[in-house]
Amino acid sequence: MPHKRYAIGADIGGTNLRVALVDGEGRIVERVKASSTDNDVFDSLVSAIESLYRDGIAGIGLGVAGVIDREKGIVKSSPNLPSVEGVGFIDGIRERFSLPVCIENDANAAALGEKWRGAGTEFDSFVLFTLGTGIGGGVVYGGRLLDVAAELGHMSIEADGVRCPCGNNGCLESYASARAMTGRVVEAIESGTESLMKGCCEGNVYKISPEDIYNYALDGDNLARETLKTAGRYLGVGIASAINIFSPEAVILAGGLTGAWNIYVETAIKEASKRAFPELFGATKILPSLLKDDAGAIGAARLAFDKTGN
Amino acid sequence: MPHKRYAIGADIGGTNLRVALVDGEGRIVERVKASSTDNDVFDSLVSAIESLYRDGIAGIGLGVAGVIDREKGIVKSSPNLPSVEGVGFIDGIRERFSLPVCIENDANAAALGEKWRGAGTEFDSFVLFTLGTGIGGGVVYGGRLLDVAAELGHMSIEADGVRCPCGNNGCLESYASARAMTGRVVEAIESGTESLMKGCCEGNVYKISPEDIYNYALDGDNLARETLKTAGRYLGVGIASAINIFSPEAVILAGGLTGAWNIYVETAIKEASKRAFPELFGATKILPSLLKDDAGAIGAARLAFDKTGN
Repeated sequence: MPHKRYAIGADIGGTNLRVALVDGEGRIVERVKASSTDNDVFDSLVSAIESLYRDGIAGIGLGVAGVIDREKGIVKSSPNLPSVEGVGFIDGIRERFSLPVCIENDANAAALGEKWRGAGTEFDSFVLFTLGTGIGGGVVYGGRLLDVAAELGHMSIEADGVRCPCGNNGCLESYASARAMTGRVVEAIESGTESLMKGCCEGNVYKISPEDIYNYALDGDNLARETLKTAGRYLGVGIASAINIFSPEAVILAGGLTGAWNIYVETAIKEASKRAFPELFGATKILPSLLKDDAGAIGAARLAFDKTGN
Repeated sequence: MPHKRYAIGADIGGTNLRVALVDGEGRIVERVKASSTDNDVFDSLVSAIESLYRDGIAGIGLGVAGVIDREKGIVKSSPNLPSVEGVGFIDGIRERFSLPVCIENDANAAALGEKWRGAGTEFDSFVLFTLGTGIGGGVVYGGRLLDVAAELGHMSIEADGVRCPCGNNGCLESYASARAMTGRVVEAIESGTESLMKGCCEGNVYKISPEDIYNYALDGDNLARETLKTAGRYLGVGIASAINIFSPEAVILAGGLTGAWNIYVETAIKEASKRAFPELFGATKILPSLLKDDAGAIGAARLAFDKTGN
């Protein structure tokens, strides 16, 4: 019997659901996007898989934001996507499609995707940060995905800092994520800081996105620039700790916020260079993701191929 | 030819040099201690090895504080033991004794020791913290030592905190180590805080040791108690981050400071329980080292056996 040609990979992250039909070379044949902030993530996922379904599928891989119980196939905890907590993804999807199903943390899946077909192919070890609404992490070591939680966004970088929905205080995510940036802008504008962003989104500051902040920064807005730099500096604190812990060959940065590379990420790299052990920092390349928003789905598909021996 | 029966393991840590002749079962046959704060660490090491030398030695393993270049056999950086930086340990010891020599970070060696013969034998994955003058880390994953820097003491837990000799700010080590404790006591007494410790060490507060602090805490001294609890709380911040990153089966705590378990470590465990993802904390056992001060030497000997195929 010939090997199955395809796997379906799903990335169920903070705000978007991305499902892709992936071939054995890691190429996306077809993809579906939907929102994952609705309460019916499971239904959206089923619809997406149905629309991609065809003969020759080896299995389905799911990358889901949160702490995963791989054996039970459930999400034990997901501070940014509480609607998936306790959902029996593996059993539900397996029953529906009669295919092998596996589950992994979304950032771990993205790291595997980058290792397979992205910015990580040439590295034996790297740390991936997903920089979006929240901050996730994944670690490749010895050429393989490290089967650990890798919740790098929930390292405390300010021991007595702001309370995080995860229960910790001072999480990296609370200082360097998209949510941290937009929160800081709202707070500053509400407390009277002058900014061109007051005129953004028809005056509704609650609708300002990280992209808006970046565009205003390019236009010379001081608050926008400072917001990106402050978040970038904190990201650098987290990158330095990751380098001191994992001494990786590379740090790969993924997620929407990398669009603000020349302000946010450059600040982070500069900060990390001042903080990490110099010998380790000097041996670490810091690179953008190559697969961008597809990394999670491609990595999840790879998991499905691996688990089914295809 | 029969297998070699022994290996020599050396632990060249922050304050002490411990060298041991270890048999194939991980038992210490004979040990030598010396100070490693002298400038002649290499000479002390040679003398210690000479005194243990006999027939049937497979090789020599060295666990040294700092960031190690395993291939070149040198210590690239050692904030707490600068005298070992750049010392060509491997070449020097190999020439002197005509035996295979390998080198590893001291806390990594201790983790391997605990895995082989100590508190880690039953765990497939654990994180070890060495709690002494500084704070080191080692990680076992998939039953094997993770070949990473694991400098857990140099995670930043206070982004804008005190400057560490390593170059970073707010390192865990600067808040939770023995040096942090004694520094806090000196500062408090010098700024007029009342404490029984004023009478310690013939009035020389600079000589107060963590053991003194612990003993005064047991006698009810408030400053001593608060010092241990504050350091313990920060240690808990670091343990929580380690749990969120590595989701280990266990956290093993080693080093002299574990002698203050019922104040310092208990406070740390309580703090970590409030901070780490509850599902991960609940799945992590927190245990003391079994090998105590011998863990590094035993682990280094194990490395020597492994590298020589004995």
